[in-house]
Amino acid sequence: MDSLAQHLVEQSCGALPQLYARYADMGDAEALASLFCEDGVYIRPFEENAPIVGRDQIYAMFAERAPRLGRHIVSNILVDVIDSHHATGTNYMTVMSTNGGNAPPQESNAVFVGECADEYRLTSDGWKFAKRAGMIALHLDGKF
Amino acid sequence: MDSLAQHLVEQSCGALPQLYARYADMGDAEALASLFCEDGVYIRPFEENAPIVGRDQIYAMFAERAPRLGRHIVSNILVDVIDSHHATGTNYMTVMSTNGGNAPPQESNAVFVGECADEYRLTSDGWKFAKRAGMIALHLDGKF
Amino acid sequence: MDSLAQHLVEQSCGALPQLYARYADMGDAEALASLFCEDGVYIRPFEENAPIVGRDQIYAMFAERAPRLGRHIVSNILVDVIDSHHATGTNYMTVMSTNGGNAPPQESNAVFVGECADEYRLTSDGWKFAKRAGMIALHLDGKF
Repeated sequence: MDSLAQHLVEQSCGALPQLYARYADMGDAEALASLFCEDGVYIRPFEENAPIVGRDQIYAMFAERAPRLGRHIVSNILVDVIDSHHATGTNYMTVMSTNGGNAPPQESNAVFVGECADEYRLTSDGWKFAKRAGMIALHLDGKF
Repeated sequence: MDSLAQHLVEQSCGALPQLYARYADMGDAEALASLFCEDGVYIRPFEENAPIVGRDQIYAMFAERAPRLGRHIVSNILVDVIDSHHATGTNYMTVMSTNGGNAPPQESNAVFVGECADEYRLTSDGWKFAKRAGMIALHLDGKF
Repeated sequence: MDSLAQHLVEQSCGALPQLYARYADMGDAEALASLFCEDGVYIRPFEENAPIVGRDQIYAMFAERAPRLGRHIVSNILVDVIDSHHATGTNYMTVMSTNGGNAPPQESNAVFVGECADEYRLTSDGWKFAKRAGMIALHLDGKF
């Protein structure tokens, strides 16, 4: 791959965490699930032994969540292109959210910063998450 | 438009929220206003019924603001290209600021996270905001 | 330079602050130092009169730091290309960290937001920091 082709893959894959945040904050479980491969895997923070496997299961998991006001602030998007159909990447998610009312503005419970380790695959429907594993590193306020 | 042309539009439009933050944090009202089209519209958070219309009015509004130390942290920049001269986009702004002294470092009053919904237009002077509407979603500390 | 060449320089230089954050958060002093030119200069916040000069000194300074859990959230990456071998840029770093335990998740001491002013140079080993100067603007919690 030349450097331009590589760059365009980086942009396509790097958009996925940002779309993830958009759909998570809109509470759109269907759009969220559509970012994953049919056989994609999602591993939630603190749940590394309970991966959610397959787009249908991922959809079900997101659809079950109670709606809440939140913002996933995405940064530090780094993509490593493996070949024209595979890439990996990491990105940070800084999250503010509330279990209080859904009408903005609301006081956030906390600020959390975590990280996702991703695998991306080019499908017939564009680049998707083949695997996405989240972890939480630090928080200001909020309790565990 | 081919994917490269589209990508370059995304980059040009995506730079606008980042320049907005730079000029806001520098307190440069003229540079801020120059990011808008001559007939651009700016809608402040909580003021959706009081749009600021036109670059001159936008300049006047920014110039009136008392200088204060602040940082607009821009993220989640997503641009949807409509055609070679029009695009829309959303982006998050996480804001820390103080009404205390202007010499850094200062204790921030709060952390706010909000969102802008933008319309971009290609003018003879490059891409500009045709419309920019802000809202605040969540805050940690700080009061409304 | 045409706009595509300029864009690729912006991407290469803009990746440096993100790699800086990755290596800082991994505690990898060697990788951190490798981001600087052999004669690179690093100026720490509050230490503008004590620049660290040269990759070896920069390595020694990073290697001496006690490991701690932290996340450098990078945003507002703006690169100004001077010519095919030189560029400057600014970027924000929002930092959460703890001097407590190293096993995530941990309560952060504070949220700090600061800024780096960078000079980039194209070397035989790719783009590197020729100079990097940090400052801290605001913080929520934490004390000075």
